[in-house]
Amino acid sequence: MTVIDPQDYYKFEYLDDQDKYEKIYKPKIEKYNQAIQNDMKRIDVDISKLPPPELLDSTNFNSLKFLEESNLLSEKELKLTNLPAYKIVELIADGELTSTEITKAYLKRCVIGNYLLNYACDFLIDQALETAKELDEYYLKTGKTVGPLHGLPMSVKEHYGYKDRITHAGFVSLIDNIAPADQKTTSLSKKAGAVFIVRTAQPQSIMHLDTINNITGRTRNVYNTSLSPGGSSGGEGACVSFSGSALGLGSDIGGSIRTPAAFNGIYGLRPTSLRVSLAGSISGGAGQESVMGVVGPIAKTAEDLDLYMSAYFDQEPWEVDSLLVPLPWKKVGVPNPKDLKIGIIYDDGIVKPLPPVIRGLDFISKKLKESGVNVVKFVPPKTQEAYDTVHHMYTCDGNYMHKKMLSESGEPLLPLTKWFLSFGKGDEALSVKENRELNGTRNKLRQEYTDLLNDLDIDFVISPSYVNSVPKPNQVYYWGYTSLWNILDFPTTVFPTGLFQDPELDIVKKEDYDYQPRSHLEQLEHETYGNPRDFEGSPISLQLSGRRYRDEEVVAATKLISKILE
Amino acid sequence: MTVIDPQDYYKFEYLDDQDKYEKIYKPKIEKYNQAIQNDMKRIDVDISKLPPPELLDSTNFNSLKFLEESNLLSEKELKLTNLPAYKIVELIADGELTSTEITKAYLKRCVIGNYLLNYACDFLIDQALETAKELDEYYLKTGKTVGPLHGLPMSVKEHYGYKDRITHAGFVSLIDNIAPADQKTTSLSKKAGAVFIVRTAQPQSIMHLDTINNITGRTRNVYNTSLSPGGSSGGEGACVSFSGSALGLGSDIGGSIRTPAAFNGIYGLRPTSLRVSLAGSISGGAGQESVMGVVGPIAKTAEDLDLYMSAYFDQEPWEVDSLLVPLPWKKVGVPNPKDLKIGIIYDDGIVKPLPPVIRGLDFISKKLKESGVNVVKFVPPKTQEAYDTVHHMYTCDGNYMHKKMLSESGEPLLPLTKWFLSFGKGDEALSVKENRELNGTRNKLRQEYTDLLNDLDIDFVISPSYVNSVPKPNQVYYWGYTSLWNILDFPTTVFPTGLFQDPELDIVKKEDYDYQPRSHLEQLEHETYGNPRDFEGSPISLQLSGRRYRDEEVVAATKLISKILE
Repeated sequence: MTVIDPQDYYKFEYLDDQDKYEKIYKPKIEKYNQAIQNDMKRIDVDISKLPPPELLDSTNFNSLKFLEESNLLSEKELKLTNLPAYKIVELIADGELTSTEITKAYLKRCVIGNYLLNYACDFLIDQALETAKELDEYYLKTGKTVGPLHGLPMSVKEHYGYKDRITHAGFVSLIDNIAPADQKTTSLSKKAGAVFIVRTAQPQSIMHLDTINNITGRTRNVYNTSLSPGGSSGGEGACVSFSGSALGLGSDIGGSIRTPAAFNGIYGLRPTSLRVSLAGSISGGAGQESVMGVVGPIAKTAEDLDLYMSAYFDQEPWEVDSLLVPLPWKKVGVPNPKDLKIGIIYDDGIVKPLPPVIRGLDFISKKLKESGVNVVKFVPPKTQEAYDTVHHMYTCDGNYMHKKMLSESGEPLLPLTKWFLSFGKGDEALSVKENRELNGTRNKLRQEYTDLLNDLDIDFVISPSYVNSVPKPNQVYYWGYTSLWNILDFPTTVFPTGLFQDPELDIVKKEDYDYQPRSHLEQLEHETYGNPRDFEGSPISLQLSGRRYRDEEVVAATKLISKILE
Repeated sequence: MTVIDPQDYYKFEYLDDQDKYEKIYKPKIEKYNQAIQNDMKRIDVDISKLPPPELLDSTNFNSLKFLEESNLLSEKELKLTNLPAYKIVELIADGELTSTEITKAYLKRCVIGNYLLNYACDFLIDQALETAKELDEYYLKTGKTVGPLHGLPMSVKEHYGYKDRITHAGFVSLIDNIAPADQKTTSLSKKAGAVFIVRTAQPQSIMHLDTINNITGRTRNVYNTSLSPGGSSGGEGACVSFSGSALGLGSDIGGSIRTPAAFNGIYGLRPTSLRVSLAGSISGGAGQESVMGVVGPIAKTAEDLDLYMSAYFDQEPWEVDSLLVPLPWKKVGVPNPKDLKIGIIYDDGIVKPLPPVIRGLDFISKKLKESGVNVVKFVPPKTQEAYDTVHHMYTCDGNYMHKKMLSESGEPLLPLTKWFLSFGKGDEALSVKENRELNGTRNKLRQEYTDLLNDLDIDFVISPSYVNSVPKPNQVYYWGYTSLWNILDFPTTVFPTGLFQDPELDIVKKEDYDYQPRSHLEQLEHETYGNPRDFEGSPISLQLSGRRYRDEEVVAATKLISKILE
């Protein structure tokens, strides 16, 4: 194979304005970061025990293992923050734990995590402690909780507007933007009792499956700090996986909830569109409705996904956001494995997954079969058409809005921003006529996949979350495995298999990959796996998808799988 | 006032190709119409009793009154076909009526109606009789019905694809287009037991609030044949109102179910989008999703709207159309008037309604108040913005698709086609960026109206269906009263007040209309009302709207209103 320079894909024009950026915005960025540092210093952490950032960026450093061995947290703090969210709200509701105690423990762990992983944009120390206190008082007074998330320390992706706080969405030009109100899902979560302790990073443009921006810099992977945390909800993925919060909220238009969950070895849900409110989130995709962004939870257990969705829908979000479908969250029992038929995608025909992912697929297939599930191979049709269509949708306005938001500050473009801006026709805007045709293609694909699942009597589909278990930073190229479910609008979870990349096992065997790359993308992705040792210890995660609006069934099946894998 | 020539609005270019049209398409059109005539001749009707078409077009001729006095139908046929749909299915289910008997009676009345009103595109005599026979046999054998519409003679707008039948959607260029399958709502209706007896006309482009096309010509109003039947589902409006069918299916993107129901004095429902399947319908708006076309019933009673919706949703349409929201049809009781607060729109600030409509509004207000309803005046905000936004959406592709479908045959453009093609920027396509901005405006409007209704604690809004009770053919200009609910996507019914235009009562009093027209549209519309005598006997109908997805509540409230007005 010959190396393809990703630069070859950059077909658009953008003039950064170094002078403006340096003179006007750099000082603001410094001030912004200083505020984060100041907040971190308020939490008592022995920073002398922390490794230097250079080491974190360059070596295979497992932040969770480090924490367990470091004594930076007391045994009790460690134990409390290791609990799943559903257990925390249970303990609080039973009066065995206060919101203040758990919030303090999480704030500490969250700050430690940020030293290691750099996922935070905005600590909410004062508000969090105040809210926790109010909740504790309410509970003391009434003996009741305010809602099913009462007292639960949560994190939220920074591009969700947060009342009276800077909300920049990873765009330097928005570093002075103060949100007038809470994003509606945030405010409904608060109504259900959530305590937000931190707002987390997203990449420049919010359109990488990786997380780096010109304000807070690079976010790292929990299990191997030299690898990508995924994106665009990479701050959430790293934070929740580190237990910097008990539960997090992300958003997803091409894999942005799922790759962070997958790369950090936890759970995530991309719901069907228009069930969870986006109102009050900032992005460069406003008004683009051909492929819809969605909001959803990132969590440490499948039960926690259910906890969040159930608590959220209790608040009847459609009463505050007129765009939403008024579908309550159905109570769906964990299915019987013997009643299930699950299709597995081993290869989408564009980029064959790398050895750790193939091992994960073989493993899940074996485990499911042993449990009585009817497992079959599923060959997804028209993946190239789906990939091309969704890519044209992402940039259908000829990047007008993204380039506007980027150029206002003159900030330099990061490599994966350029990568994204080159999707579809890049800077060449589609016509409305072309955009309509894409919608038609999308609808046909949705119907074709639905009909196919019906014909084959398949309940759910398991697929790779990505080509590799976890890629290197700035080398997260192929969105096809996740974006397929965005264009189909099929609810999809990510779950960890419990396996981790092993350079002894996960080698590229010549007989398996002995072919001419079928695409530039395949060549590009496969070349990133040059040395399997680089990916050691990275979690192997997969996706589970179901038909549109069957979010509840998908989450219930994910619970079953997590039990089977226990 | 000075007369504004609507020609002033025609700002686009279109070259018709008279030669092609005359040589290639005219013979096909003739053949098409001959088939309709041949079908009509199969039904035994004494055509010597019928008035000549010239009389129908030029005089205030009431087709319903004519039928009652004509003896063209037997007393029994008349009685049977005057029954509401819910009564017919009841009688059939009780074994007191056969599907064959009612189908034959309706076929006869439908053909008579077509001689008078010219609403039919395609009679389905053989299929209807065969289906009726099968249903009767099934009932005889099992003692059961196949579904809640068992044996009900229905009509359907022609642009719903119908398996193996020509489906031209009012475009001459599609006169050879044979549909490969039934439109999905049609096929689900059949599953519920419906017997389709006729497919009815829509205007050229399906984008008039009137009904005339170059294939089947002009459709007439039931109550006054010199007036417009409304559109684009004008064939349905005339057919159902004449009782040419017991229930009909139309579609609506700007008033297309509602003006036909209103102008012909019956009921119609524009449901919330993505609840009823459009799949398999043909139009020039495919892929345009900023303002969604919807499919819905047209009926003689409010109960029949409920019957249809309930029967339809029993078929779980979301299982066959992956675009649909899986919301079943809730059972909602008729509300207590004392629990209701209803807002009334007297004027949208753009075009003030004409005297008969004001009388209708005053009448409903009085009747509702007498029943205990809390009635308030509702001033709709930002109607100009809503009107401009939705108009730009209609033509956002610069009329590419419509002009393509029109120019392929070279057919001449009809006045209201030109009118529609001039909406927004006419032939100048929007950019995707502009289209996105329109979506944002639409979302803000939806939220603002929802919040306003919540703040004012208003359950439903009653508004004019149109500026006039019924306008003259080719003079149906202002869409604002109906298209408002399309851009808001609020479910909306039309109901008859029971009042009819009366030239003695409905005169333009100088004190009420003594102002400079606020818009060209107002001037244009008010000028059409030069002689109140022209509109004598036309039904005065209104709209009832509720919040998104509250279709069931809107239909239940419509039932209440119909009871109050009895």
